[in-house]
Amino acid sequence: MEDIRVRYFDTFSRDDLKDPVLLEGLPGIGHVGKLVAEHLIHELGARKIADIHSIYLPPQVMIEENVIRLANNEVYLYDGPPRQLLFLVGDFQSSSNEGHYLLADCYLSIAEELGVSRIYTLGGFGVGHLVDEPRVLGAVNREDLKAEAEAAGAVFENGEPGGGIIGAAGLLLGLAAERGIDGICLMGETSGYLVDPKSAASLLSVLSVLIGIKTDTTTLEERGAELEKMVQKMIESEKGIQEEELRYIG
Amino acid sequence: MEDIRVRYFDTFSRDDLKDPVLLEGLPGIGHVGKLVAEHLIHELGARKIADIHSIYLPPQVMIEENVIRLANNEVYLYDGPPRQLLFLVGDFQSSSNEGHYLLADCYLSIAEELGVSRIYTLGGFGVGHLVDEPRVLGAVNREDLKAEAEAAGAVFENGEPGGGIIGAAGLLLGLAAERGIDGICLMGETSGYLVDPKSAASLLSVLSVLIGIKTDTTTLEERGAELEKMVQKMIESEKGIQEEELRYIG
Amino acid sequence: MEDIRVRYFDTFSRDDLKDPVLLEGLPGIGHVGKLVAEHLIHELGARKIADIHSIYLPPQVMIEENVIRLANNEVYLYDGPPRQLLFLVGDFQSSSNEGHYLLADCYLSIAEELGVSRIYTLGGFGVGHLVDEPRVLGAVNREDLKAEAEAAGAVFENGEPGGGIIGAAGLLLGLAAERGIDGICLMGETSGYLVDPKSAASLLSVLSVLIGIKTDTTTLEERGAELEKMVQKMIESEKGIQEEELRYIG
Amino acid sequence: MEDIRVRYFDTFSRDDLKDPVLLEGLPGIGHVGKLVAEHLIHELGARKIADIHSIYLPPQVMIEENVIRLANNEVYLYDGPPRQLLFLVGDFQSSSNEGHYLLADCYLSIAEELGVSRIYTLGGFGVGHLVDEPRVLGAVNREDLKAEAEAAGAVFENGEPGGGIIGAAGLLLGLAAERGIDGICLMGETSGYLVDPKSAASLLSVLSVLIGIKTDTTTLEERGAELEKMVQKMIESEKGIQEEELRYIG
Repeated sequence: MEDIRVRYFDTFSRDDLKDPVLLEGLPGIGHVGKLVAEHLIHELGARKIADIHSIYLPPQVMIEENVIRLANNEVYLYDGPPRQLLFLVGDFQSSSNEGHYLLADCYLSIAEELGVSRIYTLGGFGVGHLVDEPRVLGAVNREDLKAEAEAAGAVFENGEPGGGIIGAAGLLLGLAAERGIDGICLMGETSGYLVDPKSAASLLSVLSVLIGIKTDTTTLEERGAELEKMVQKMIESEKGIQEEELRYIG
Repeated sequence: MEDIRVRYFDTFSRDDLKDPVLLEGLPGIGHVGKLVAEHLIHELGARKIADIHSIYLPPQVMIEENVIRLANNEVYLYDGPPRQLLFLVGDFQSSSNEGHYLLADCYLSIAEELGVSRIYTLGGFGVGHLVDEPRVLGAVNREDLKAEAEAAGAVFENGEPGGGIIGAAGLLLGLAAERGIDGICLMGETSGYLVDPKSAASLLSVLSVLIGIKTDTTTLEERGAELEKMVQKMIESEKGIQEEELRYIG
Repeated sequence: MEDIRVRYFDTFSRDDLKDPVLLEGLPGIGHVGKLVAEHLIHELGARKIADIHSIYLPPQVMIEENVIRLANNEVYLYDGPPRQLLFLVGDFQSSSNEGHYLLADCYLSIAEELGVSRIYTLGGFGVGHLVDEPRVLGAVNREDLKAEAEAAGAVFENGEPGGGIIGAAGLLLGLAAERGIDGICLMGETSGYLVDPKSAASLLSVLSVLIGIKTDTTTLEERGAELEKMVQKMIESEKGIQEEELRYIG
Repeated sequence: MEDIRVRYFDTFSRDDLKDPVLLEGLPGIGHVGKLVAEHLIHELGARKIADIHSIYLPPQVMIEENVIRLANNEVYLYDGPPRQLLFLVGDFQSSSNEGHYLLADCYLSIAEELGVSRIYTLGGFGVGHLVDEPRVLGAVNREDLKAEAEAAGAVFENGEPGGGIIGAAGLLLGLAAERGIDGICLMGETSGYLVDPKSAASLLSVLSVLIGIKTDTTTLEERGAELEKMVQKMIESEKGIQEEELRYIG
């Protein structure tokens, strides 16, 4: 098998695309980015156009209505108006350091192939305590982009986050710069302990300005509660496996 | 050496096969799948037709009557009646995430080569407490297969297991779908703390219906006790090694 | 993407070089080597001539004045007098064992290509307690080099450090020997708990003699305090991520 | 650089060899095998004929009389009488699971190239408590070899060690079988907590019979004390590095 395999659906044709923008919302801190991206996919009725399987994702399958499917990442397309949006979402980020780079590089090849000239990566910024009014921190991969993000409500604090950004949200922007693709990272402040729909709502309000699309956010809270439940199940199942491994696997 | 090496025994010819079904019972939670598969191999007098060595298995040898052999995975064949069964069993699952994918992919190449059109993967479903009457959960890689499994006694709960399935039992089904091979996963409820012959007996009763082969299960308890002893020795030996590594290996 | 990519800046021409010496100061124990190298780069006004990205570095981006850049390693050039110095510095060392070797090998290819015949690797030597007057331990990759380093103030204790040297500072010298490149490793004693400008000052005083360049060390303390602050932020951010991973990533 | 590089010394010619036997004594439990192999090398005045470097060994250099050398594995030759012995010793075993396989495979290619038809692997068998009269357990890769080892004093207990053998001592025998090379593994009982010259002496007494070479074992105690000191230094240095990594490396 290929290390990474991208599969476009037959219902999709590259000719459908006209200057789309890519939004990344893979799982991460507080699942803020995932919440926002999946909310938009749902509210806008975006359709799945591709999936990505890889040996760099955890060796795991998900179960949907009793049917198994490989853990994957997926690309969705919203056809506008006012503009086309591509979404990169999925079950997991890479399970290895090298895989993080190789997957991010693959995502950008997809982006380039689909004519993307701007990427938004969406994530959480863990602060370790509950936040009443979560701010949305911004980071860009080209100085010129800062003013636009700031005007939309993103906060730029010099050198924040001080520890840099780990994982897809950061790597995508770093690697996009070299391909001449603009990138803006939006990070909602969050405790880091729970799925955080409040932080997602803040992020969404900034993002809405940037992409010129407003959606009803009333369902965000509900979606957050569901996701939290799923996350809990995963943690329990993962914990079970780890205890097992301690016992059985040499 | 090759990363994965499959070796068929000379006594085996592909021409012997006629529409065999593949049963996977590698080590896992409660060793439920392993118990069931090895029980059937023994009761049916299946013969070994191939072994698989790989750098993705732990760097370890097993000792059988003072003679060393590499840790491996093995394929057995039961020639029927009423039908041919192939068994995939072994000492370990992969010791790395990438290896899990690469081994599962290799197993499916074997399956395809041997004309397998259906796979059963057998495992445990850890619930964290002792279970009086272990149910057998089912999952399938094609919606149509559910009714058949359900009729045989498998329980389908929407979205269970919520955390998905980690390792060979899941990956084999996920990857099989893409090759057009049907797959049913049966998971016996088990505490997750001990080798569980009771869970294995439940699983076996469902599987028996599906494959149309009934066996005497009185020896299952005994086999479970033996396996538990072996597992304990491995844990101790592994613990010793780890303490060593903390001390000696830079 | 390539596993390791070296990119020379257009403003740099190999013809500019005349028998340069390479100084390595990547992050490590007490950040002693990093402090010394960055101090010299700053004081001497060295200019960046190349950067190195790699899948063996952590999957992370750094943020400088709100703009993202990939975690990297960098090469700086000081044009003399009295002689040309190349500096190898960066955000991280490799995040995998194999990557350590492959990156060190790449650095030496760069060194060879740029005509380097001598390397100094700069690091800390953790002693586990505060040190009033930190000594500078030396190690060489050719017996003949010892006298010179000793004359400059480096201390050679037979067999010290007893545990060898882990990471780039050691590997570069070990691999350089095979390419016929001389190597001297200087290690400032340090507690190992904090960024240590005092140890860096000691190391610098020895190095100054060896490279024949004296700099004002009054800013070293200040630079150390800044670096410590950055390190703290990274630890916190890293800790946040790890807690997250325990919760979210399967 | 190559993943594994074997370098024969110029002073060595393959024509020097006549049916040599290979003894493996890499670091492991109680450093029993290492003690025995290094003792024999010293007592018999064996000379180094090759060294092996690899990205699968820890990224570390050792310091001998202030001069750095890469962590490695080495091959020594004792020219007899009564027969030629090759020794495989070194600083470390592989630092990754896959590396264990790839290095063991490489060692066997060396063995085959040098005309080796029998291998002895020497190790410790950790029992978790002090042992007054350490036995020497045996394991073979061909049933026929058992009688010979037993006659020399090795103990064969059915299925012991129950957890199999992890690392080079086991893998070498497992992989040797496929190449038609005979293999006997000798394991001295040891607590597993300290370098154990007493266990080494027991092992040596059995090995002496097998290879027909008797040596003075009075220096073994002394050598053990030295090795223990070195091991302690390594543990401390390693501990220091790990604390560092927790603090500095993202």
